[in-house]
Amino acid sequence: MDQNELKELVGKEAVKFIKDGMVVGLGTGSTVKFMVDALGDRVKNEGISIIGVPTSDRTADQARSLGITVKSVDEVDHIDLTIDGADEISSDFQGIKGGGAAHLFEKIVATNSTKVMWIVDESKMVDQLGAFPLPLEVIPYGSTQVYKKLEKEGLHPKFRMDADGKHVLTDSKNYVIDLHLGEINHPHELADYLIKQVGIVEQGLFLDMVNTVIVGRQNGPEVLQARP
Amino acid sequence: MDQNELKELVGKEAVKFIKDGMVVGLGTGSTVKFMVDALGDRVKNEGISIIGVPTSDRTADQARSLGITVKSVDEVDHIDLTIDGADEISSDFQGIKGGGAAHLFEKIVATNSTKVMWIVDESKMVDQLGAFPLPLEVIPYGSTQVYKKLEKEGLHPKFRMDADGKHVLTDSKNYVIDLHLGEINHPHELADYLIKQVGIVEQGLFLDMVNTVIVGRQNGPEVLQARP
Repeated sequence: MDQNELKELVGKEAVKFIKDGMVVGLGTGSTVKFMVDALGDRVKNEGISIIGVPTSDRTADQARSLGITVKSVDEVDHIDLTIDGADEISSDFQGIKGGGAAHLFEKIVATNSTKVMWIVDESKMVDQLGAFPLPLEVIPYGSTQVYKKLEKEGLHPKFRMDADGKHVLTDSKNYVIDLHLGEINHPHELADYLIKQVGIVEQGLFLDMVNTVIVGRQNGPEVLQARP
Repeated sequence: MDQNELKELVGKEAVKFIKDGMVVGLGTGSTVKFMVDALGDRVKNEGISIIGVPTSDRTADQARSLGITVKSVDEVDHIDLTIDGADEISSDFQGIKGGGAAHLFEKIVATNSTKVMWIVDESKMVDQLGAFPLPLEVIPYGSTQVYKKLEKEGLHPKFRMDADGKHVLTDSKNYVIDLHLGEINHPHELADYLIKQVGIVEQGLFLDMVNTVIVGRQNGPEVLQARP
């Protein structure tokens, strides 16, 4: 199976965990896209009633087009389960997210969820975090100073630019800086340091947050219980 | 002297600290407005060359109209001195800012300044912080959940609304929540807690930051050295 087939497989496996009547947080990214397609099939074929809480405009548009009821995180009083992708998951189930520049809204929805599930192809499972550049969402005003400070600290920042050489903008119209760290030895300390920097809105380490991980492997999806 | 006369007095006193060639951070608010007027006079009358780094669109517009050269915090390589107002200053020189909804940009500029000066009329000097509601800048998406969590924690949040009943928006198009705390006993712990909440971009406690405070008193401006 190629990577896309693995992603489709875990997407289909994930929606089996969704029960009629649930409020479901819907992540962002290529794996989530397959999951939302599969959820749309269940809504259509089984007539289950689901409220989807999207983490990006992209996911909201897709869910609506499939007939899934969409509400914002501010319109629901709880979220039962959030299903999202991840860019890297370590062996102790810490994660990096934000490759799609949606990690702020993804973290807002995950923080407000009873349970969190990540769905990934097996290439995302790593021993240690950090090969994937750590995304930060930063306020444009002052971002050059934030960049210089991170550079001075040896954190190897790079502004994320689009094909036209313009800053990639998040749904909140902020910039993205990626930290090319290679390896992250103390994720909690790093997260603490980063979130306290004035001008950094959110950082892409998702720590102590995921309950279930579904990994797409060649011999089928593997369901891992990360935390109760 | 009434409050406005005290504000004008400290504004005029503050600009005496500005030297030819300095890069000066320009705060936001009614006291700062007098200071920028006085700085405009110095630029015009003495021909001193100053670069002003504004903390809001309002201050930028005022400075430009007075012939002060304006650059963004991203266009300068350092800021010598930032002069700003404050909503409350405690006896140990900690502050609350954000009554004008500009505390994010104000903190960005202050953080990147060699020295910080606050100018206030005497009504802003207090024994303990907290009578003035503590402003938070929050991402609109998920702000209802942030509000509920702060309420559950007993922090007495209120969304800041304008006269038309709409959310006050910051220059970054975020909402403001004010915490009506009455008194703040442990400002560092509170600041730590708040900045780690997902969806809170910045909070209005300015701790261990100010070097000089000028207080407008009935018998003249008092210059206080807070930190070296």
